Amino acid sequence: MPAIPSSLLHLKPLFFSLPRFSSPSLALSRARKFPIPIINPRSHSSLSSAAAAAAAQSTGDNGSGGGRFGALAPPPITEELQKIDVNPPKGTRDFPPEEMRLRTWLFHNFREVSRLFGFEEVDFPVLESEALYIRKAGEEIRDQLYCFEDRGNRRVALRPELTPSLARLVIQKGKSVSLPLKWFAVGQCWRYERMTRGRRREHYQWNMDIIGVPEVTAEAELISSIVTFFKRVGITASDVGFKVSSRKVLQEVLRCYSVPESLFSKVCIIIDKIGKIPVDEIKKDLKSAGVSEEAVEELLQVLSIKSLTKLEEILGGAGEAVADLKQLFSLAEKFGYAEWIEFDASIVRGLAYYTGIVFEGFDREGKLRAICGGGRYDRLLSTFGGDDLPACGFGFGDAVIVELLKDRGLLPELSLQIENIVCALDVDLQGAAARVASILREKSQTVDLVLESKPLKWVFKRAARINAHRLILVGNSEWQRGMVVVKILSSGEQYEVKLEELV
Amino acid sequence: MPAIPSSLLHLKPLFFSLPRFSSPSLALSRARKFPIPIINPRSHSSLSSAAAAAAAQSTGDNGSGGGRFGALAPPPITEELQKIDVNPPKGTRDFPPEEMRLRTWLFHNFREVSRLFGFEEVDFPVLESEALYIRKAGEEIRDQLYCFEDRGNRRVALRPELTPSLARLVIQKGKSVSLPLKWFAVGQCWRYERMTRGRRREHYQWNMDIIGVPEVTAEAELISSIVTFFKRVGITASDVGFKVSSRKVLQEVLRCYSVPESLFSKVCIIIDKIGKIPVDEIKKDLKSAGVSEEAVEELLQVLSIKSLTKLEEILGGAGEAVADLKQLFSLAEKFGYAEWIEFDASIVRGLAYYTGIVFEGFDREGKLRAICGGGRYDRLLSTFGGDDLPACGFGFGDAVIVELLKDRGLLPELSLQIENIVCALDVDLQGAAARVASILREKSQTVDLVLESKPLKWVFKRAARINAHRLILVGNSEWQRGMVVVKILSSGEQYEVKLEELV
Repeated sequence: MPAIPSSLLHLKPLFFSLPRFSSPSLALSRARKFPIPIINPRSHSSLSSAAAAAAAQSTGDNGSGGGRFGALAPPPITEELQKIDVNPPKGTRDFPPEEMRLRTWLFHNFREVSRLFGFEEVDFPVLESEALYIRKAGEEIRDQLYCFEDRGNRRVALRPELTPSLARLVIQKGKSVSLPLKWFAVGQCWRYERMTRGRRREHYQWNMDIIGVPEVTAEAELISSIVTFFKRVGITASDVGFKVSSRKVLQEVLRCYSVPESLFSKVCIIIDKIGKIPVDEIKKDLKSAGVSEEAVEELLQVLSIKSLTKLEEILGGAGEAVADLKQLFSLAEKFGYAEWIEFDASIVRGLAYYTGIVFEGFDREGKLRAICGGGRYDRLLSTFGGDDLPACGFGFGDAVIVELLKDRGLLPELSLQIENIVCALDVDLQGAAARVASILREKSQTVDLVLESKPLKWVFKRAARINAHRLILVGNSEWQRGMVVVKILSSGEQYEVKLEELV
Repeated sequence: MPAIPSSLLHLKPLFFSLPRFSSPSLALSRARKFPIPIINPRSHSSLSSAAAAAAAQSTGDNGSGGGRFGALAPPPITEELQKIDVNPPKGTRDFPPEEMRLRTWLFHNFREVSRLFGFEEVDFPVLESEALYIRKAGEEIRDQLYCFEDRGNRRVALRPELTPSLARLVIQKGKSVSLPLKWFAVGQCWRYERMTRGRRREHYQWNMDIIGVPEVTAEAELISSIVTFFKRVGITASDVGFKVSSRKVLQEVLRCYSVPESLFSKVCIIIDKIGKIPVDEIKKDLKSAGVSEEAVEELLQVLSIKSLTKLEEILGGAGEAVADLKQLFSLAEKFGYAEWIEFDASIVRGLAYYTGIVFEGFDREGKLRAICGGGRYDRLLSTFGGDDLPACGFGFGDAVIVELLKDRGLLPELSLQIENIVCALDVDLQGAAARVASILREKSQTVDLVLESKPLKWVFKRAARINAHRLILVGNSEWQRGMVVVKILSSGEQYEVKLEELV
């Protein structure tokens, strides 16, 4: 076949038929013969047409076979046909290519930021022992545990968060690691939430944790990494901010009213609900937890403070709470993200284990849930029977950030892009096309190899869909001369190239 | 402070103390005072020493606080101390940094090969409806399902494989996608296996699938991608090979003996156990499945064939089985991997849904289980109530390949490498060091920022552990001149650089 002029390529789609098999007979030792009908080439191939073709075939004589596809009438695989729900289980997601590209982009940014900060990636099993999550502070997380008994009668749970697994691994590693550890993870977490408000039951969470640093520099570094992430994806300080406080504020107030320390985490969990449930209920809950009416009032008053100066007036300047917070705000200046953070005494976070600085990323329009959150948890390891180590970290989910990016028009356009599409112009040249594809791939070029005999119109349509840069046509006459036709799809430019010169 | 001569840097580790807080008093509205003892700077920081420090502190007076770390004696978070198992649940893995680097490397290769072949990445929920896996052919996979009832009384299962989810998504997408689909996934799968032979209960699996191509070119392309992967990681055709057959071989034999087609997948599952359980048991199972003694003998004879020519003699040249296999071997030549594949009629694979070509990657020393496996499954969609589409794919686990690479000395050396380590030479310069780190990170440099006041000896040790290229020291006198000290760690070369010229 001579080289095809580019005009022809555009104007005259060529049709080829599928390979045909002659003498369709079976010569088994006990010879029986089945006629094998010849299938028509399908000239286009959306799922609908293919499905129609499949349906057409399935109406044929099953006993005598049905052509190449569904050839020799393979038997049904299950004895009974089941009609399954084609949606993923309630609250979970599929990631078809377009969603997966977004996820890959997001995770890539999580990972790149973590690497800039010198963090090492880790992961843990998605299925953990339930005991890891059974804390007694009445956290929401516990009621939402996806837990069950495995075949070995172990109580297990799909992890609702990553920090307990991290703590477990740190204890397990013991003396074999050098401190500080700077670890990050991107993992799927599960919560069996009531499906109101369109919340999902699984999400991916980016975590960064620093183990072994007691100083507030660690928290400052963590917030810096989140700011770096925001900047990378185009989010500014006018879009989001961080509300920062310290659990030591609460602690100092509680101590003042001689509230037993065993109530601390329980009180934090109740206080985290401020703004989510009515204040009267908060008061009631605090009182029934054992906090005196006087202390409740004082507590709520302190929690309404939004200025560090005001806090210092009330708590005095010498306590840990104020000192930590002042240091954090001073470091924020040096890191260059002072405009991103603000003090807000009401921030306590909803997990029981925090002990010091806590923070939460929020959208300034106030339309979304917290984007991320974290803090210091110096006492977590001992609750698992390990020796405590100073620690802090954050969790950053993949759901709210995507809503925010969408809202701000910042979602990237991520289209499929495959450099080459390689197509044989004759069914006998399928092998030759395969060879061309192999040569290009060896040179690190991405190749979509057309695996069927298709009309050129179809090939061009596919080339457009995959954003191919070049179409490489393997035709008979060029192939005999060791050449292929290369067509640059953006310009229409077309030329012949020797196989060994193909790059 | 003047610039430190490099000799001094090597010889005289400097010690700095942690920040101290003056007037440690609390001036809460109802003033109470707690003395805050000053903590000693820790001169080194392995987990053991930190743990010892923590232990030392916890013996202090809890009521009066314990310094910065564990400051103000944060209360225990849970009411009861629990001693948890620090190991991940039986059969599962943690991925500490060194394991994670290997996993990242492996997955990167899976993804890069898939992209070279023009495949798009997808993913599905790790938790699927149990119905997706309930096939009636007696597969091992069904007995090993990690299934349970969720809080909404739905029967769910941790996915044991990815193909059923893929089929579900393809049916769901219906007419909205253009065929062929070329999709890949790298996902965790779960099987509750008896823990003999050190097998795990979870593994990651790389899948590539082609939906919509009836021709054997699709299978040829899939095997080509696996070969490309092997080559990338240094594995040759003398290390591994592919055994290839077609389920149509079995089908043709069974049909010849009038074995009902409804038995087909059940027979395949039994035959897949050849080599794993004694032949007499295979025969017994086949007979009790309803295959006549005569057919069993013929079947076993055909399954022992290792030559395509011999197969053709017995089945005749016109059947689909022989035609498919001949085409595949011919394409393998063109793709350039002929030496990697061989015909072996005993290969049927252990999943019920295969209908045509089946293949399996094996190590030529015969020490390991199958490395990967796949085949054509043209009838899977209809078993879920969808319209059938021609389809083929493979699964490639992350376990056997790592054993093989280890065995061949091909595991890559993947060490942590962070370009810069930035350290303040004075506690007051922590903020300045943070600024230096930020500047470098904005220039896409990876930075490990020393977050505590540490002796230089410690800093050099850490620099070596993280394979840092440069140490950047922020000292007082240089900082006042807008400069930092840069030390190239490989050469010992040391110089001052202006902050704005730092790249």
